[in-house]
Amino acid sequence: MRPVNEGVVVGVDIGGTKVLAGVVDDEGRVSHTALRTTPGRRVVTSRVEDALVEAIVEAAGGESLVGVGVAAAGFVDSAGERVMFAPHLPWQGEPLKDLLEGRLGCPVGLDNDANCAARAEARYGAARGAGSALMVTMGTGIGGAVLLDGRVVRGANGMAGEFGHMQVVPDGQPCECGRRGCWEQYSSGNALVRNARALMVEQPSVLNDMTDGNPEQITGPMVTSAAEQGDLVAHRAFASVGHWLGVGVANLVAALDPEVVVIGGGVSSAGDRLLEPARDALRRTLVGAEHRRIPGVVAAELGPRAGMIGAALLVS
Amino acid sequence: MRPVNEGVVVGVDIGGTKVLAGVVDDEGRVSHTALRTTPGRRVVTSRVEDALVEAIVEAAGGESLVGVGVAAAGFVDSAGERVMFAPHLPWQGEPLKDLLEGRLGCPVGLDNDANCAARAEARYGAARGAGSALMVTMGTGIGGAVLLDGRVVRGANGMAGEFGHMQVVPDGQPCECGRRGCWEQYSSGNALVRNARALMVEQPSVLNDMTDGNPEQITGPMVTSAAEQGDLVAHRAFASVGHWLGVGVANLVAALDPEVVVIGGGVSSAGDRLLEPARDALRRTLVGAEHRRIPGVVAAELGPRAGMIGAALLVS
Repeated sequence: MRPVNEGVVVGVDIGGTKVLAGVVDDEGRVSHTALRTTPGRRVVTSRVEDALVEAIVEAAGGESLVGVGVAAAGFVDSAGERVMFAPHLPWQGEPLKDLLEGRLGCPVGLDNDANCAARAEARYGAARGAGSALMVTMGTGIGGAVLLDGRVVRGANGMAGEFGHMQVVPDGQPCECGRRGCWEQYSSGNALVRNARALMVEQPSVLNDMTDGNPEQITGPMVTSAAEQGDLVAHRAFASVGHWLGVGVANLVAALDPEVVVIGGGVSSAGDRLLEPARDALRRTLVGAEHRRIPGVVAAELGPRAGMIGAALLVS
Repeated sequence: MRPVNEGVVVGVDIGGTKVLAGVVDDEGRVSHTALRTTPGRRVVTSRVEDALVEAIVEAAGGESLVGVGVAAAGFVDSAGERVMFAPHLPWQGEPLKDLLEGRLGCPVGLDNDANCAARAEARYGAARGAGSALMVTMGTGIGGAVLLDGRVVRGANGMAGEFGHMQVVPDGQPCECGRRGCWEQYSSGNALVRNARALMVEQPSVLNDMTDGNPEQITGPMVTSAAEQGDLVAHRAFASVGHWLGVGVANLVAALDPEVVVIGGGVSSAGDRLLEPARDALRRTLVGAEHRRIPGVVAAELGPRAGMIGAALLVS
């Protein structure tokens, strides 16, 4: 344990909707959290920095800051200094590390949120002890990270781990990125909802009652809840998303042969309902399955705080 | 330069059809090569080891052996001790490193042929000076390797870099591996020939003269030769293989964000005829192309000796 009078390390995770900061100790335990709403992408950039600083200072609760780590939902440059682009934030090449160091007077570390979550899972969670691991985060889309020898592979542009836009279906579903057939169009929170909408008109489902028969009302949590009630439409929606998860994971395993594959993000709370079809597809799709140990496909252990905990590791 | 009286390092590449050994100096230059025919997969394993030892001893030409590196066309375990499986050889878990050390009385290094070629290109060839690189070898199928910080990523089972069996088309072309839609069914020497066969019956082509009108007679070198003569069928066959090369490379770049992508293997001798459509498909398929430096897709520089040269690096 760090002595109390030495000050605290704060990890902060800035996503599209909220800013979550917390004091993280050197065993990965979180205390004194603070929450802010993300100001959105149509504001001046200093407003976003204000929200970050407010959350950090509130979380620190008067203790001095030893260091601050920031996990950002966006592209961070390979030096870990700038947010190059973030779909839900106004930043374009924002020198966030320098700006925050100037305002906070302590060292600041910066990385992409999926990379931070992977660091946390490697140190304290589902990838603990693994020499190599892949992290796939399933939220609205798919993010990810590659861990080798306990380190995150950041890439020449800081853009390694962008698994969600690997093409799995030529000329497939259109994607927000402007291309077609991206993996996250088949395996993500959005894909889960789209599957349920399409299936709901084909067969009876409790989703009809939940939405007064309007498929457009379906949300991801509704599909999870319906699946827990044994609803067949919800079950099929998860089976498809899980199947495509396994197909994409098989491609990554063919390339990288990791010890374990950790699935995080909101959709992963479905557990084996998602992971069993993924494991099945992995076994059937992976090259040389008969000559290798097939890596485990396991749920992340640290939940929505993983990004914040991993951010703190940048300065610990 | 190593003093003459210190002995020599021999690199040896064992493929499906031939065994090529050579003395490799510490600047990657090759002298005193020796060639044997690979005994095939239906012989006792000792016959294959005999062929290896003969080629190595002949290449060494009476000099003492400082070390021997072996590049094998097959799966090598993560410790670099055994050939677990090789499609054209009788080995199944063969403890090749120990066997050869016993017979040769010097240290022996062992790795997969694509990994060895990547090591050679990283030290002396097209990936020289790159912090991270992908190597894609296009022969009959596709092999590959991942280089990070100048080191080959070998994977938990020694099976990293098996790019050829990443699925690019769901329920696509059947593959020798027993699955469907593998990348190498669309981008490889075999794919080139299959494309040319299908196109030859649709439009006039010099391939008709070369084969007396029998598409089954087409070989890869014929398609290359026809393309050099400006033949449109051959041109289209290369364009398709190049397009799919770029699509697969885009998926790998999304995951790993390397500085450079090196294309080796026999098909890569076509140069820009293959690489231009690949670069074009990479630009159009790669996520965030507008926010990053897109890696170069370049031809390997060391040719068919790359595996032998990289094997020598295992013991240099």
